[in-house]
Amino acid sequence: MDKILRVNTRTNTIRMEDCSEKDKFYGGRAYIARHLLEEVNPMCDPLGRENNLIIAQGLLGDSLVTTAGRCSIGGKSPLTNGVKESNVGGLAGKRMGRLGLKAVLLEDAPEKPDTRVLLVKKDQCELVPTPELKGCVISETFRIVQEKFGKNTGIFCIGPAGEMGMAGASVATLDQTGELVRFAARGGLGAVMGVKGIKAIVFDDAGTPSPPVYDRKALVAANRELVQMLRDDPKTENRREYGTPAIISVCNALGILPTRNFSSGQFEHADAISGETIRDLIIERNGEGKKGVACVQGCVIKCCNVFPDKNGKKIVGTLQYENIGLLGSNCGIGDIDKIAELNNLCNEMGVDAIETGAAIGVAMEAGVFPFGDAEGAKDLINQIGKGTFLGRIIGNGVVVTGKVLNVRRVPATKGQALPAYDPRALKGIGVTYAMSAMGADHTAGNALETAKRINPLGKEDQVEASYRLQVRAAILDSLGVCLFIRPPFVKKPELFARLVNARYGWNWTYSDVQKMGIECLNTEREFNRKAGVSDEQCDVPEFMRCEPLPPNNTVYDIPKEQLNEIWSVQLPEDMF
Amino acid sequence: MDKILRVNTRTNTIRMEDCSEKDKFYGGRAYIARHLLEEVNPMCDPLGRENNLIIAQGLLGDSLVTTAGRCSIGGKSPLTNGVKESNVGGLAGKRMGRLGLKAVLLEDAPEKPDTRVLLVKKDQCELVPTPELKGCVISETFRIVQEKFGKNTGIFCIGPAGEMGMAGASVATLDQTGELVRFAARGGLGAVMGVKGIKAIVFDDAGTPSPPVYDRKALVAANRELVQMLRDDPKTENRREYGTPAIISVCNALGILPTRNFSSGQFEHADAISGETIRDLIIERNGEGKKGVACVQGCVIKCCNVFPDKNGKKIVGTLQYENIGLLGSNCGIGDIDKIAELNNLCNEMGVDAIETGAAIGVAMEAGVFPFGDAEGAKDLINQIGKGTFLGRIIGNGVVVTGKVLNVRRVPATKGQALPAYDPRALKGIGVTYAMSAMGADHTAGNALETAKRINPLGKEDQVEASYRLQVRAAILDSLGVCLFIRPPFVKKPELFARLVNARYGWNWTYSDVQKMGIECLNTEREFNRKAGVSDEQCDVPEFMRCEPLPPNNTVYDIPKEQLNEIWSVQLPEDMF
Repeated sequence: MDKILRVNTRTNTIRMEDCSEKDKFYGGRAYIARHLLEEVNPMCDPLGRENNLIIAQGLLGDSLVTTAGRCSIGGKSPLTNGVKESNVGGLAGKRMGRLGLKAVLLEDAPEKPDTRVLLVKKDQCELVPTPELKGCVISETFRIVQEKFGKNTGIFCIGPAGEMGMAGASVATLDQTGELVRFAARGGLGAVMGVKGIKAIVFDDAGTPSPPVYDRKALVAANRELVQMLRDDPKTENRREYGTPAIISVCNALGILPTRNFSSGQFEHADAISGETIRDLIIERNGEGKKGVACVQGCVIKCCNVFPDKNGKKIVGTLQYENIGLLGSNCGIGDIDKIAELNNLCNEMGVDAIETGAAIGVAMEAGVFPFGDAEGAKDLINQIGKGTFLGRIIGNGVVVTGKVLNVRRVPATKGQALPAYDPRALKGIGVTYAMSAMGADHTAGNALETAKRINPLGKEDQVEASYRLQVRAAILDSLGVCLFIRPPFVKKPELFARLVNARYGWNWTYSDVQKMGIECLNTEREFNRKAGVSDEQCDVPEFMRCEPLPPNNTVYDIPKEQLNEIWSVQLPEDMF
Repeated sequence: MDKILRVNTRTNTIRMEDCSEKDKFYGGRAYIARHLLEEVNPMCDPLGRENNLIIAQGLLGDSLVTTAGRCSIGGKSPLTNGVKESNVGGLAGKRMGRLGLKAVLLEDAPEKPDTRVLLVKKDQCELVPTPELKGCVISETFRIVQEKFGKNTGIFCIGPAGEMGMAGASVATLDQTGELVRFAARGGLGAVMGVKGIKAIVFDDAGTPSPPVYDRKALVAANRELVQMLRDDPKTENRREYGTPAIISVCNALGILPTRNFSSGQFEHADAISGETIRDLIIERNGEGKKGVACVQGCVIKCCNVFPDKNGKKIVGTLQYENIGLLGSNCGIGDIDKIAELNNLCNEMGVDAIETGAAIGVAMEAGVFPFGDAEGAKDLINQIGKGTFLGRIIGNGVVVTGKVLNVRRVPATKGQALPAYDPRALKGIGVTYAMSAMGADHTAGNALETAKRINPLGKEDQVEASYRLQVRAAILDSLGVCLFIRPPFVKKPELFARLVNARYGWNWTYSDVQKMGIECLNTEREFNRKAGVSDEQCDVPEFMRCEPLPPNNTVYDIPKEQLNEIWSVQLPEDMF
């Protein structure tokens, strides 16, 4: 995994390079941050010629480590105008790692819109014209691409939203069984891929040898410990059974479940859309329904599901907490079947369900459709795919939607929609939303796990907790493993170093791992500063500072000065 | 002119205050910059409760000085997210000055949209509910307001675009005869007024005494000198005869006339839309047509016109260079009657013709209508008024239009559309576009006047020239006089001090006047920095750095580092 594939999408030049000695120590998210700062003009138009789409494997991406293989996609975001990394499970990252690729860089952009597939095989890389894929929705794209390039390939692709350059566009991939479609959803990276005229990237690893490991025995041993820790963690069982929707009830009880465009933190139909309900329906309806599905091979958590309709036919795989929160309660929709259909429609158009759900919520507040109107919401997502004017507004995300439709209550920071945790009653995640270079992003440092230790309504300890979580997230995103392996790690951070050392033969301690995470955050912040996304822009949405959130009736009250203290937090070197 | 009227548009509290001792030395634009920095949260939503709409008279605003009475309107711009000042002639500023008002501040915003008139009389200020004005176009608004509050009042009002919170919305006023409707057009201040639920502000100065003057004789004498200098300037005669459209031919010859979304600097139909053609048509068609009309009483330049149709009936008053450039050549439209109609439609909807023309150009590039399709352009402006989704896109300006319609060639800096001088062949104005806190704004420092001394295609001396022009503009905008009195002043800058001293009894030298201008620029820059509009965002549009502009086939090549040198330019203290 020491090769870099550079594809100039304008000249169609493809070059395989060796990774520089320095870059070898950086994977996934950390690699993306470095690449952006070193090679991309921070002030460039994210959808112009100067931006790059970067697909980067985490340091453990090609290894047998559980959950490893989550692949980072990055670039300058058309949504936030700053650094963006979004990672995703599925098969493509695994195949890419097996091809020895540390990163694929899509550079420049063709003069005219184009629809091509980048095919990457052991001894062959080429841009294949595929006009037949133009405008295809995601499922159709996968079908045609697999038909043309083989069932066993790993695929990244975009939907019509990405082709139309919409800032809410995502990048899709499949799991190993083809049951799940997963997304590097946030930040509009699908649009960056779209303007480069790349509809899909296909990794065919046929004929490649097993990836190298410095000390297989040590790796197996360390992984075994990790797996055991996960198995011992009660959350793992819960996640396998109920998936991420398990926290619908938790968040509803805390009063942070976004409801009707973040006007309440509790939803009267929370039970009808909860993890428990979903699990029961999957069992009851049977058919194609499934729970406990893994998005990457070798994952022992298996938090995904396949959600079936009343006849047992799959509606969507997978139905996750964030999407239910944004497309469901946030739109006042309490029918889980409808939510699953909306989620599937977002998937088909290739748009981030979080961003799109938030945009629909704002459109509902503007009166385009009433809250609770699932058919209206469907219509809006279909319009995204058709590229109507309204569809383009929604597809460009919540900030553009609020601007065009003249809505003041816009749940976004740095241009990106808030995920499904209202920060007014979970103050720690507000610190992350405000301060992370990624904009509002729960995966950048989700304070939900701190809610039992730290009063979620209080101001104390939130800034430090967020920073700690942000460093952890940066570490995990750079290793290419899942955020859900974080909790057990807290007890044994040196395991990280052991995994990395076993894979590469390095002599890292946990302190080196931590340094990598901190450096990643600093690099991202530096890129943002140069990109004009200044520290001043680090805050929660204005209305959350003055509008109390029922049922706790709290506003977001951590002062900006206190938020800014995050830059001087010092972590103990040996603590995760 | 030492009173400040504070209107809380939420609580309907109206308070008359004395101007602070310090603020007395700041008028118009300089007052706005100070007010924003001192009282408005720089990171606030420009259309939220925390922004203020500021109407501020220049220091000479209530005086007999020629061109004085141009009134500054300001606030945090919904278009640029930074400081905004836009000034305008007409009667309202004069009436406001006569009422002794230095500034009117509209604070906060009502909970629900509202349609009210702020009535300001000698001894009475009130917010009058006027539901009958809801959605009225500008001409209808003036008609109803005059009917209700008197013909002789000075009026500021907004059109449907402002009511709908569109970022391209303007604020309108009438000249003393009611023939001209003039606009504080740039930066979306009409939307700021709209969200405050104020459809119009009416100044009724009946019963007020003449404004105070410290030394009337000295003021008359200084003004006489100024008038003589203007009369001696050949440009004055030219402006009275041909108006600002005189420069269509000049700009076309220089190759800077924006044509088809800034893809060329020359337009094949330039002759058909030139100042000469306009003058000839006004004479030939006769009827309501007029040339040499003044926008403020007492102006000796009189650069405005009333442009009639073939039957002599007024289409629009006035038809200016920028609007012809943006709505005409930039949209590929070479029919002056159609351009006048488009201009009038922009006026009626209450949107900036520059921003809207640029947005239509981008929509044409996206293929919504072909270039040259005047009926298509009309349809778009009508859609603004109707608030259709497409209309709202266009009405929100060129950046939103480019984003939603997926166009890369977007002629804007800091969120605001470029006026009708392509910087690739007039490098000095590119410095202003890039570096001014106002975003792309020709009135912030128009380098056209330097084109004879400084090679417009060269990089040398442009930065210093732009700075000098920016300081001058800040001075004139803070005094409340027209930019067109700048050239004669160059020879006799101390006249500024004499005018100010005669009005107020101060002991200013020109150096004090210059300091005021420089301080104004610095204050604006400081507000922008705090508003997250950082120095990094100071550049020309990306495509202008790589796409050569016919016929000179030059790109914009003043490096960013050289642009940044503007902050260290030192001007001689005694030179204008």
